[in-house]
Amino acid sequence: MARQIHREIQREVEELVTGGNMRPHLGVVLVGDDPASRTYVRNKTRVASLLGISSDTVVKPTSVSQDELLELIDKMNRDWKVSGLLVQLPLPGHIKERAVCNAIAPEKDVDGFHIVNIGKLCLGQTSMVPATPAAVWEIIRRAGIETVGKNVLVAGRSKNVGLPIAMLLHTDRNHQRPGGDATVTIAHRCTPREQLKELTRLADIVIAAAGVPGLITVDMVKEGAAVIDVGINRVQDRTTGKLRLVGDVDFEGVKEKAGFITPVPGGVGPMTVAMLMKNTVAAARYALTH
Amino acid sequence: MARQIHREIQREVEELVTGGNMRPHLGVVLVGDDPASRTYVRNKTRVASLLGISSDTVVKPTSVSQDELLELIDKMNRDWKVSGLLVQLPLPGHIKERAVCNAIAPEKDVDGFHIVNIGKLCLGQTSMVPATPAAVWEIIRRAGIETVGKNVLVAGRSKNVGLPIAMLLHTDRNHQRPGGDATVTIAHRCTPREQLKELTRLADIVIAAAGVPGLITVDMVKEGAAVIDVGINRVQDRTTGKLRLVGDVDFEGVKEKAGFITPVPGGVGPMTVAMLMKNTVAAARYALTH
Repeated sequence: MARQIHREIQREVEELVTGGNMRPHLGVVLVGDDPASRTYVRNKTRVASLLGISSDTVVKPTSVSQDELLELIDKMNRDWKVSGLLVQLPLPGHIKERAVCNAIAPEKDVDGFHIVNIGKLCLGQTSMVPATPAAVWEIIRRAGIETVGKNVLVAGRSKNVGLPIAMLLHTDRNHQRPGGDATVTIAHRCTPREQLKELTRLADIVIAAAGVPGLITVDMVKEGAAVIDVGINRVQDRTTGKLRLVGDVDFEGVKEKAGFITPVPGGVGPMTVAMLMKNTVAAARYALTH
Repeated sequence: MARQIHREIQREVEELVTGGNMRPHLGVVLVGDDPASRTYVRNKTRVASLLGISSDTVVKPTSVSQDELLELIDKMNRDWKVSGLLVQLPLPGHIKERAVCNAIAPEKDVDGFHIVNIGKLCLGQTSMVPATPAAVWEIIRRAGIETVGKNVLVAGRSKNVGLPIAMLLHTDRNHQRPGGDATVTIAHRCTPREQLKELTRLADIVIAAAGVPGLITVDMVKEGAAVIDVGINRVQDRTTGKLRLVGDVDFEGVKEKAGFITPVPGGVGPMTVAMLMKNTVAAARYALTH
């Protein structure tokens, strides 16, 4: 599915460029030397380049001041060559992430974390939708999974993932930015285990975004339910001792009962990067007409 | 409970004024001659006056242009004598309500409908919380109803009522603006009746904000559940033929089973006006320090 979206974006980029428009450009700001952040950024710029989207990464040391970072963002906001702009999170403790997210021009905010983009998402208005929730939405749509009047359980309430997924799925399909019209339950770390099981067993769609390995087991899932695993957890393999990636769902058990299931790695992850690229092209298109 | 809050606000206003500060002032804009809107505005300014909050209402004809309305709001935003400012909704069809809500200075936005206040509410940041959701929150708190890890069902997803209630109740109690840490289900007009019943029967707290008279019946409620009725519906009495106010809950039936229940009229309604007054005093306090 991610490859299919890649092909669509490639085509769209080529159409833009052959139409005499600027090539979409993704500006990335990376602070410090967290290995996971570096890997994420490298992966994003690699996919961008595959799709014909140009990019550049500004690397700042961990010691960078918040003011310096805000100045850099301001410069990139005003730079017409930058279509979309993202600051890789997390940031060092002395920098307020919220201030940084709100400093990015909302129309260039390809991560969709600006307060105005969050507000618009809640109101069902067109906005930059954060890439992971957009990926979950796209998987559901392209897999032909019905959402209207269905019972959805989202495990996890993070502001960048669980909450926006709940917003997309419960809102009105006739709004400016169509929603899923599903009944949606938001569960989280305070949800008692028995209560969670009671609710997942009623769910037509279970979306696991809690960051808890093996949270969703086969006894918790209704026969034929769609199970989408957004968790990315690094755990030590019991036999080999090596670190490996697992999701929040006990894939081997649940796959026997689910009607649809996404694996980790390889499910939501690649789709998320694809949606970030989609947002970058959307930002480039927006700039053409404004 | 509303009377108790009235006394608290009265005391707070008198402290402000005897401390040499300006008396909190509520500016109201009323467009057109919708009788319900007129009644609401009259009620708000009457309660304000009872609590020592001054107010004035600017009445504009239905024919007022959006630009004229935005200019008026801009003037009131810059008027330091206006602590809090609300435009009574609904507005005539030729005026975009969203543009009007977003024109009000967020720090004077006592209705809490500005896009930035909605975004902050979702992020668990301090913000102006819309009065009806704030009223539901306050009822739960003052009645001593536990929310952490409890199962809450909200029937209704309106942007001014159902959705913000779900936001308040599912979010983290340790955030800047504390949330309820409850598991929350958002149901709405697309939720099939049987699915709704299945979910309400599991709920420790049912909040009815759908605008559907008699939606919640006794067979749908768990023994001892708290039931909060936010519905305000005008229906014709079968025997007398007169219009009367009813909620979304079949009060007579449900009260036998619920551990806590609010009536309509007289429950959430008076609390809502009290919370609007609280927001006005908060706006006045904010102006003192900024």
